[in-house]
Parts: sequence; structure tokens; C-alpha cells
Amino acid sequence: MTKRQVKNILFIMCDQLRADHLSCFGHPTLKTPNLDALARKGVLFERAYVQSPVCGPSRMSYYTGRYVHSHGASWNFVPLKVGEMTIGDHLRPLGVQSALVGKTHMRADLSGMARLGIDPNSKIGRRISECGFDPYERDDGIHPYSGHDPDPAYNQYLRDQGFDGDNPWEEWANSTVDTEGNTRSGWFLKYSNQAARVPEEHSETPYITRRAMDFIQEAGTQPWCMHLSYIKPHWPYMAPEPYASMFKPSDALPVARSEEERLDPHPVYEAMMQHRVSQTFSRDGVRETVMCGYMGLIKQIDDQLGVLFSFMEERGLMENTMIVFTADHGDYMGDHWMGEKDLFHEAVIRVPLIVYDPDPRADNTRNTRSQALVEAVDLAPTFLDVYGGPAVPHVMDGRSLRPLLFGEQPHNWRDAVICEYDYSFQDARIDLQTAPRRAWMRMIFDGRWKYVLFEDFRPMLYDLQTDPQEFKDLGASQNPEHIEARARLHEALFQWARQPRQRVTVTDEVIESVEVQPRISEGGILIGYWDEADLAKARQGFKPRFASTNPLVQPTLDRLTAQQGDTHHA
Amino acid sequence: MTKRQVKNILFIMCDQLRADHLSCFGHPTLKTPNLDALARKGVLFERAYVQSPVCGPSRMSYYTGRYVHSHGASWNFVPLKVGEMTIGDHLRPLGVQSALVGKTHMRADLSGMARLGIDPNSKIGRRISECGFDPYERDDGIHPYSGHDPDPAYNQYLRDQGFDGDNPWEEWANSTVDTEGNTRSGWFLKYSNQAARVPEEHSETPYITRRAMDFIQEAGTQPWCMHLSYIKPHWPYMAPEPYASMFKPSDALPVARSEEERLDPHPVYEAMMQHRVSQTFSRDGVRETVMCGYMGLIKQIDDQLGVLFSFMEERGLMENTMIVFTADHGDYMGDHWMGEKDLFHEAVIRVPLIVYDPDPRADNTRNTRSQALVEAVDLAPTFLDVYGGPAVPHVMDGRSLRPLLFGEQPHNWRDAVICEYDYSFQDARIDLQTAPRRAWMRMIFDGRWKYVLFEDFRPMLYDLQTDPQEFKDLGASQNPEHIEARARLHEALFQWARQPRQRVTVTDEVIESVEVQPRISEGGILIGYWDEADLAKARQGFKPRFASTNPLVQPTLDRLTAQQGDTHHA
Repeated sequence: MTKRQVKNILFIMCDQLRADHLSCFGHPTLKTPNLDALARKGVLFERAYVQSPVCGPSRMSYYTGRYVHSHGASWNFVPLKVGEMTIGDHLRPLGVQSALVGKTHMRADLSGMARLGIDPNSKIGRRISECGFDPYERDDGIHPYSGHDPDPAYNQYLRDQGFDGDNPWEEWANSTVDTEGNTRSGWFLKYSNQAARVPEEHSETPYITRRAMDFIQEAGTQPWCMHLSYIKPHWPYMAPEPYASMFKPSDALPVARSEEERLDPHPVYEAMMQHRVSQTFSRDGVRETVMCGYMGLIKQIDDQLGVLFSFMEERGLMENTMIVFTADHGDYMGDHWMGEKDLFHEAVIRVPLIVYDPDPRADNTRNTRSQALVEAVDLAPTFLDVYGGPAVPHVMDGRSLRPLLFGEQPHNWRDAVICEYDYSFQDARIDLQTAPRRAWMRMIFDGRWKYVLFEDFRPMLYDLQTDPQEFKDLGASQNPEHIEARARLHEALFQWARQPRQRVTVTDEVIESVEVQPRISEGGILIGYWDEADLAKARQGFKPRFASTNPLVQPTLDRLTAQQGDTHHA
Repeated sequence: MTKRQVKNILFIMCDQLRADHLSCFGHPTLKTPNLDALARKGVLFERAYVQSPVCGPSRMSYYTGRYVHSHGASWNFVPLKVGEMTIGDHLRPLGVQSALVGKTHMRADLSGMARLGIDPNSKIGRRISECGFDPYERDDGIHPYSGHDPDPAYNQYLRDQGFDGDNPWEEWANSTVDTEGNTRSGWFLKYSNQAARVPEEHSETPYITRRAMDFIQEAGTQPWCMHLSYIKPHWPYMAPEPYASMFKPSDALPVARSEEERLDPHPVYEAMMQHRVSQTFSRDGVRETVMCGYMGLIKQIDDQLGVLFSFMEERGLMENTMIVFTADHGDYMGDHWMGEKDLFHEAVIRVPLIVYDPDPRADNTRNTRSQALVEAVDLAPTFLDVYGGPAVPHVMDGRSLRPLLFGEQPHNWRDAVICEYDYSFQDARIDLQTAPRRAWMRMIFDGRWKYVLFEDFRPMLYDLQTDPQEFKDLGASQNPEHIEARARLHEALFQWARQPRQRVTVTDEVIESVEVQPRISEGGILIGYWDEADLAKARQGFKPRFASTNPLVQPTLDRLTAQQGDTHHA
């Protein structure tokens, strides 16, 4: 293998990490030198967007290369339907093993598997259940309630270290001890600036990083695509020392919210502001408290990535491993009077994306920042491209980033990104008395204008050029420029919506290459021929392709093209 | 079982049968007394539309209850992707066997099955390959080139009767003998007014009707849904005597075409007019010749249905069998300067639909004609409804027709029908140098206005109120009424396009019933709680649902809601 040719892919994801919380993305106090160094070796994408603001649908878009509109797993508890193809399915035929270390938020389609007679515990059943990955170690966090394994290997690991209990994940790794000696759960935001009960080395991030290194150690010569998927900085926002004490509230970015946003807000936005988490984060002191833990957890991830990158460097893996760093979505943290992640503001849908490609063709883009509008769905096609698999635009909505990494100007790069949200599972839907089928919002953002379409409510519109903080909803504005922008993006959203990529069983290339109609005639299906002479004449132009492989066709065509006076007798 | 309660469903489909070619639908000379009698016993739907103008995608919509936009099998050779649920999948859990006698045009998703480890020859593999039916006898016609069994049971049947050869389907059942004693193939339109070489009883329609009766004889007590799917009157348009001589060209409906249509036609329409079959059918005498065979084949089907209905009557099956009669699409037959079926004129997309429901609740609609806009996708939900299965609007695009059959006024019945066509496999696409992905046309028809949207061309518009023959394409008209109609239907099509029904793994009812967010909190995932007091207060409103089934949750919640001074010690 040529030096600096990609053999492996390390696909790192953080959960709930805002783009603006890395120093290479501009954070003034939260220094992330290891990720900054990665960015210097590769390309930093400043405008990378996820396909949905919550974990499950966003991840399923990453793993399938398809919009939620296409794959249908529209919320966290919605199983990805059996039959959907994932990164693992696409890479397996190319000789690449796709391994999982960490979280996917995948819910298995058990009823679909039962219908198709697939044993969920078979090798294929496991892959279907783990969205195409072979799980080296799956860990979704949030034990025992994640909907996955209630007592994962990490719990047993903690017990082995002497951290006992039914659920040491919560009682030790995500709890603290107050000044009176009481155990306090990290589930409560109030304790987010306190230290976890476990020493740093036994907390989740170093543990899962070591598991990734274990995988690398054990991996044989077969190329791998490892999804290293950190649970953090997702809640519980509880970091161990020294990270718990590393950041003060004054280190946090100023909250981005305006009183103007609470005057006559869009009905769905207003209902979202009523959610418990939004109410809590709008109270004084909550963001400040939580930010300490959140920043500490991010700093810890950066340090652990430093460990991992050194480990890889020592083994020469930096020469043949593409490294992708991103997140499944951000976190409001009180911005826009919101907690969590249920709308389309930049804090939530814009994610960090850094891609390091060791290939020499990527040398001229190292340490550059791309302004291209890129999306979560672009990673799966990138990986396919890396291993030389033909693009599958009939299946994947995304496009390979490799031309951008190589400094090319790809033809017709997208001029807008899409984000979708099925909020039917949220209280806002109930409060608004909306039927589940109508509880969809869809966003299109062209780099300046952000348009959000609802089913039963007026749209929203933001102009990020004049209003980068997204305080002014222009969705009802009668300004002609705003009317025009809404109409234009509305139409663009329609163009997008009518490309659901469901014709997944036949490639565009097959259609382009076979000249179906001649092939049909040459195969013996004669449509619109008046008589033998018609066929005989047309047959002069036939390229006997199908005919030559089917012994039934040639004699039949010979017989059928026999001239009038020359036919065989009955 | 109560008398006149539906136990079985007989789902009859003809291939390529225009709605206007039954006497109950107004044909003046082609008398179809058995279907007319069925219509008198049931409801005749005057405005029934298919979801695509060609066999494969139309049928997949019938069998799944889903638009092509949802199921993705966009043309004849496009396999229905593994995982798509069909009538058989929906009815099987209700104790109903879904049997196939005849044609489906299903192409199996072999690569999908391989990926999922499903043996195509296993019971489940066979069902996936036969779009959910257990095939009693599949026969797609067009042997040996159908893409299915090149030598089906019918060929052996013909040989057993002394009609020898490699392919007696073509050489006997679909060939004729000319006056000079030469065998002439029914593939050539010129011979469509000649008699097939087989006696009537051995031709395809009586054969497959007998096979349906065989199935009924052999069926045990288990309820069945039998898809009796005739190949005819699809080409080759060759009827046996006496049907071959039964109709003269003067019996045919006048051709519906106008010179106006050839002046500045829409580019795609113009390209379609260049297809061989369109050119041939536009020549003098072709329609007249073909119509003789076409009408004969329809008359034969009606007679055979008379035999079948008598057979059922004798066995008391008319008392407990719903009978549905329809077609997968129509046939231009030279109307609009077109052959075959590649656009959206009424001759092609409007199909006959008659539904006889023995249930006493349907008594007050017997012998009525419904003007409701109904679609092919409505049959699968109707069948599900018949057997008491809950509606699955998260999966099926259609709605049960049963309320209409019972004389009710269903709430919010649709006000427009949809038809889609992926013409990427057609020569027109190549001629126009359109990429496969852009070769889509989509139609919406509200009962008056028919709007057709293309990707790279102007739209088409017809006003069927002032122009019932569809001669005037108003797609570029600047008349304000036409501009308004186009804009309105364009927006309606967008609304349709953004409901692709891919969230098939979770029902709307589950979403409505579970109150997801309280359940999440009650299950131990605490989002947005500041402290113990917050949770304790909220917990007063909890209904311990999830908690009561998970022994981990209750003690954890108890611990977490312990008051400040009351927590256990570390």
C-alpha cells in the first residue's frame, strides 16, 4: 500500500457538542489543542449541518447518508426500518469492517426482523440492530434507561474498580458528593459544576477511548472504519476532576437571547419555550452552572483525543487513517430561551466538522477552513469514496467531501442545507393539539436565509447576514425582500422534498447504460411493431445483447423477422 | 360467522384495461353483463385512479397501499425493496392467507435479500419475491421474456393439450394462422384482429380463471384474499374465437386526438409521441385493427368472470366474499397520438373500479356510482379494514373505501389524486438528454384541473371541465385562472411530497397514546430538572407506568426524589 493512502477511517462523534465550543471554531477560553492540531492537518468545515436536531434521526442520517425524509427514523425511539442500508452495508463488500465503540442511539426494528424471519441475535440480525456496525463495544450512556443494555460493560468495569451498586454509571460516574457528604445525582443540573465521584481515568470518556485503542490493538490487517462515539458532553453534564474545576461561569460564551424573541413568538417556538428544560435554562444561574460541566467534559474529550492521536502516531496510523471529528447536534444551553435541541438555531444544528485525510492529494488543503455548505449525510458517501466504491446517488442524499478535501471545485455543489424535525413526540405537539402526522418542521438554509416550514403554522425566517444571532423571526414580515426569500426557499424545499431516493434497488448508472427500450425489443418484447417487416428493419439496428445470452430469444427473433413469404408453416 | 360478513376477498385485476371499455362505464358496443351485474350489486367508482401509468409501480402501489414516492419501485424492472410491507404482510397476522393467481410484475430484491441473509427460496424469501403473496400460480405472461419464469405452468398445460413447442404461449396462444397457412405472431399489431391458434378454453383467460377456481376448491376454512390477476387485455392483443371475430372497427370508441395536440406540444409529450408505439398507433388502421382484439379479450374476461361468479354463487361464496374488480392502468390505443401508457391522460390513469361488499351495511349503496376521488392505494387499507386490522396511516397512503361502501361521508376525504411516473427508462428521457434522477413527472388532479410537474420542463395543465378530452395543454397559458390553478396544485403537490410515510416502525397511535415526555421522566431520564425538589414536585404528577415495569426505576426515582436533608450518605 502506498504511504499516506487511506486504509482506515476513524469516525469520531461527540454527542450534543456545539460547533462554537472548540478553540479552532473560535471559543476564547475553552482550549482544545488536540482538535486544533487535527484541524491544522486537515480541513475545518465552518458550515457543517446535521439533518435533525436530535440524536436518533441525526445519527441515522450520518449512518445511512440519507435525509430523515428518506430513512424515516424520525425521532429517538423510532427504529431504523430493516432494509435501510448503512455505512457498514456499503463498506462490507469493499472488504472493510465497520466497528462501533460507543453510542449510536439505534433502536432495532424487531417487528421488521420478525416479519423477515431474521434472528436479532444472528450476525446479520446484530448488524441490523446496530445500524450496520459490528459492535466492539456499544454504550449509549444514560443507564439503565437508554433503551439498550441496562447494565453495560462500563458498569461492570466500574464495579471491578470498586465502584459498586446496581448502576455505578449513575451512582459514581455521574454523581457527586456535596459538602455535607451526600451523594447528589448528576441528573440534576444544579450539580453540573461539581466533580464526579470517580477519578478521571475511570470516567466515561477515558474508558471509551481506551476501548477504541483496544480495538485498534486487536484489529488485524483488514481495513477498518471505527465509529468512536462519545456519550459526552451530553447530559448528565458532570465531569470528573480536574475538569470539573477547570472552568468558571465567566469562561462561558455569553448567552444568546433577546427579549424580542419572547414578544409574539412563533406558536411552536413558544410551546418549545414552555418545555421544562427551556424554562429551567431560562432561569438565572442555570446556564452558568451547567456550562462549567459542559466545558470540562469537552476539554476532557480533547485531552483524550490527544492520547488517542499519540497512540496512533506511534503505530504509524496517522499515515493511513482518515480522521473525522463531528457531533450529532448542539445544545441550546439557554440560548434563545431554550434548553436541549428542538429547533433549528445555529447552536443546535451547526456542528463542528474536521476531516483529516492523509492522502497526498489533500496536502494543498491542510490547515484550511472550508465555507462549503456540508451536511451529515456527506460522510457516508465520503467513506465509500475513500474505499473506491462507486457513488450511490440513488441511495445516498449526501455527496463525497473528498473533492473538497483535494481542493477541487465540485460541480454543482449544493447551495442549501436541510434539517428536519418530527416533533410529534414532544409536549409542544400535545400543547398545540397537532396530530402526529402534522408535527413536522423542515428547514432550508442557503448560508444567509434560514426558512422553516411547518404544516399548520406560519413559516419562520431568519436573515443571518443582518441578524447573525437569529433574534428576528421574519416569517410573517411583509417586507418584499423577506417575502421573496420565503417564496424562493419554499420552492427549493419542494424540489428537495420530491427526491426521496426510494428507488434504491436500481442505480442511475444502470439506467444510463442499458438503453432499456432497445434491450426490451432485443430481448423479445415487441412493443408497437406493426408487422414482420417493421421488426426486420428495426432489427438491423439491434445490438444483440440480451439476445446473445438467452438461447430462447435469438431463434424467436429469427423466426419473427422472417419475411412475409418466408415464414414457416403451421 | 354471521351471514353476509366478509370472510374472503377476491381481488381481480386486469392488465391495461381502460375504464371506458366496460358497458357499465359507458361503452356503447362492448357489453360486459357480468361486470355490469357486479356493479349493480356493489359500488362503481367513476373516478378511480392508479398511482403510476405503468404496470410495475402501479401494482406495487396496489399491493403496498403506498405511493411510488413511498415504496420506490418506480418502473417495471425496479425491484420492490426488501422490507416494504404488502397486503400479505398486513393480513397474515389477522389469520388471512393472501394468494396469487396470475400476474404481479414483481421483481425480487435479490441483493437486498442477500444483504439480509434471506434465502429467496425459503417461505419468507418467496413471499418477499412475490410481493407478499403466497403464489398459487404466478403467471406474468410475455413468455419467455417476462423476467419471471420463462416456462410457466401454462406452457406445460398447452403442451399437455397437444400445443407443442419451446414456447407455446407465444406460438399457439398468442399467434394466428394467416390465409396462406403461415403462423403469424400476435406480437405484431397487424394480426390483432385475427384468431389465436388455440381454442377458447385453452387460452390464457379461461385457464387462469380455472386456476382461481382450483384455488377456491382447495382452500380450507382459513379466510383468503385471492389476487386473481389477468394478463389480458394487455398485448399481445390476440383473442381466440369467437372473441376474435366479435368486434368490428366500427364498434370501437372514436379515437380521441386532435391536430392541436401536435402544435407546439410539451417537450416530454412530444418525445413520447416519437416512441415507436406512438408512431405506429398514429398510423391509419392500427387502432382499428388492435381494437378488435382488445375488445374481444375484454369480452372474454367478462364471460369468464360470469363463470367464476356462478361457481362462487353455487358455493355460497357470494355471501361472504368481497369482490373487487380493477385494472393496473389503461391503454392509449392511439388516443392523443400515443400508444401504450406513458403519460397521464384519462385513457391511461383512470381505471375501472367496482367493489361488491356482501356486508349488510353496504346494502344502501348497492347499484350506486360514486364520484369520490379514489386511488389504487385505497385497496390495501380497505382489505385491512375488512379484517378488523387497525388502520396504518403511518405506512399506507391510501384510506379504506369501506365508509364509502357503507354510505358514510368520510371526514376529510381527499380532494385530489396523485399519479407519478419515472420515465428514466424510456427513450424520451434519452432523447431529451435528461439525467435519470430528473426524469420524473408527477400529476395532481382535483376532479377538474390536471396539473403535471416536470423537473426540467414547464408544467402541463388541463381543464377537464371545459376540455374533457384533454386536447388543450394550458401549462404555459397566461390566463389568470390557469396561473392560479397551476399555483394552487403546485402547492398541493408540495404538501403531498413532504409526507413520504417512511416512519413506518412507529404508529401514530403509539405517539398519541404514550405521552412520550412524561414517560421519559417516569422512566428515569431527567431532562431539565434543577434539583431534587424539582423532581419531587414533578413526580406528584407522574403516573408510574414505565417505572412500574422496570425494577430499576422505582428505587432510583425514590432515591432521586429524596429531600435535601434526607439523602443517603456516600
